[in-house]
Amino acid sequence: MYNLGIDLGGMSIKAAIVDENYAIVGEKVTVVTDCTEGAERIMDDIALAGKTAVEKAGLTLADIANIGIGSPGAINLETGLLEFSGNLGIDNYPMAQALEQRFGKKVHIGNDANAAAVGEVLAGAGKGASTGVCVTLGTGVGSGIIIDGKLYLGANYAAGEIGHTVIMVGGEQCTCGRKGCWEVYASATGLMRQTRAAMQANPDSLMWKLSPVLEEVNGRTSFDAMRQGDKTATEVVRQYVRYVACGITNIINTFQPDVICIGGGISKEGAPFLEMIMEEVNAERFAKKTAKPTRVVIATLGNDAGIIGAANLYAAQ
Amino acid sequence: MYNLGIDLGGMSIKAAIVDENYAIVGEKVTVVTDCTEGAERIMDDIALAGKTAVEKAGLTLADIANIGIGSPGAINLETGLLEFSGNLGIDNYPMAQALEQRFGKKVHIGNDANAAAVGEVLAGAGKGASTGVCVTLGTGVGSGIIIDGKLYLGANYAAGEIGHTVIMVGGEQCTCGRKGCWEVYASATGLMRQTRAAMQANPDSLMWKLSPVLEEVNGRTSFDAMRQGDKTATEVVRQYVRYVACGITNIINTFQPDVICIGGGISKEGAPFLEMIMEEVNAERFAKKTAKPTRVVIATLGNDAGIIGAANLYAAQ
Repeated sequence: MYNLGIDLGGMSIKAAIVDENYAIVGEKVTVVTDCTEGAERIMDDIALAGKTAVEKAGLTLADIANIGIGSPGAINLETGLLEFSGNLGIDNYPMAQALEQRFGKKVHIGNDANAAAVGEVLAGAGKGASTGVCVTLGTGVGSGIIIDGKLYLGANYAAGEIGHTVIMVGGEQCTCGRKGCWEVYASATGLMRQTRAAMQANPDSLMWKLSPVLEEVNGRTSFDAMRQGDKTATEVVRQYVRYVACGITNIINTFQPDVICIGGGISKEGAPFLEMIMEEVNAERFAKKTAKPTRVVIATLGNDAGIIGAANLYAAQ
Repeated sequence: MYNLGIDLGGMSIKAAIVDENYAIVGEKVTVVTDCTEGAERIMDDIALAGKTAVEKAGLTLADIANIGIGSPGAINLETGLLEFSGNLGIDNYPMAQALEQRFGKKVHIGNDANAAAVGEVLAGAGKGASTGVCVTLGTGVGSGIIIDGKLYLGANYAAGEIGHTVIMVGGEQCTCGRKGCWEVYASATGLMRQTRAAMQANPDSLMWKLSPVLEEVNGRTSFDAMRQGDKTATEVVRQYVRYVACGITNIINTFQPDVICIGGGISKEGAPFLEMIMEEVNAERFAKKTAKPTRVVIATLGNDAGIIGAANLYAAQ
């Protein structure tokens, strides 16, 4: 069985064929997202990317069992509307209908973070799990919740904003309006802010050698300096890990899922990062004696999670 | 259809017949819980309470479609074991089997907080909801999660410990080992501690008139003094409401359920308390524009939630 998965982003549209073993078949096709000419143009380019991926795999649309697309923004599954997407500049647009017209087949639409969670939990690091939560530590902290193999979307399709749960009452301002959200502390953006603050307070830190310009600090600066033995950097990473672990433990105590997948840019720090997180989590999680503790793993599909998940939205919604 | 619901507590065993409209039929029967003679004695007393309730309703066991019991502690639904209950002093006891022997019928067992959530969400304040979270602000902060009419228990039956999600990194010590759990701040115990601290810092507060002995402060002291215009008490209640609202908003942003029911001792403060909570929640919740915002309501079944929920565990597990 072949499914077509499309990952719509603010910068590019990626499409590929995914087989029943969740593997990408043939080439990935990338088309630049042109947000300057409105929704119809974006839909045309999505259809172009999708149809090209089908052709490049030596197939025709008749061979495709399911088509799915992950899109930024708030998707209403009942109406098929893309209700709001700041990134794309689209409001209340009948996306499912517009794409079904272009493909001549049913199209499953979903939020991009949720599609990536479907990919990672069903086919990636969480493979074999029936219940899993996927969090991405990137510009923000995204999350998607899978329960019994299905996306959990709540009563209004807006569930899963775990990045916007407060872990520090009265803490730092979040873009969502609250103060002290997990996202403020555990995102790459948060780590960079914490890194810069520590550098300013410690002019002798090795981090100044790695990044002489404060504005060029990135998510790797503190990790790199820690590996070279810098004390200030080590403390930055330790405190950041505590923030990440706090939210992971909150998820465990709430959901006790089979698996939690950690993705996003910072997850590239890999096994040593995970080990530091688990030291905190294991000391703090509830139900320490359970025979089935939640596995916490680093996501493995990277950018393909969105495509593979989109191709499998049909089964997860 | 008649179901038998039993609420096993550390102090008493309560049993009653519940009809298909979730109404209690006949008399509630109460038997003291004797924890001094071991598990078999408790099982005998549960059977006594249950059978007496059947008789008092003018029925026989043959008329009872389902039997359910809510018990303190960690219940394993696969094995029917009560794995651990500090309150009852029971460990790894085959509770389902022991009760089925005594009743001669299948018995559904579940955690007491989860049974109460089933009662409140399906039959009480949340009636009509398919997805709901019930929180109780009592000695601790309990919670039960209902998704699509079923208890959500996670991979290991231990899910739903939302009271043990951290809202204040590095905050006050919780009994679970973490620091800054929601329970520490939003439980009745937390409110009493906050009340006493404010009294000690403000010797002229009216609260000293209502409770001249510091150790006799209770969950009503600050609310009562606020109603009489006391400034210190008003600030205590406002800050407490902020803590409660923080966790409620976290639940909304995570689950976007149809309904959240607030029960437990403090919930008796009723509509004015709920109004203060909602002022915070409405300012902070994600997806403010959704057409289906989560309803937040005060629980209505009180102590009957446990019995009614237990009687309906058969449908919710």
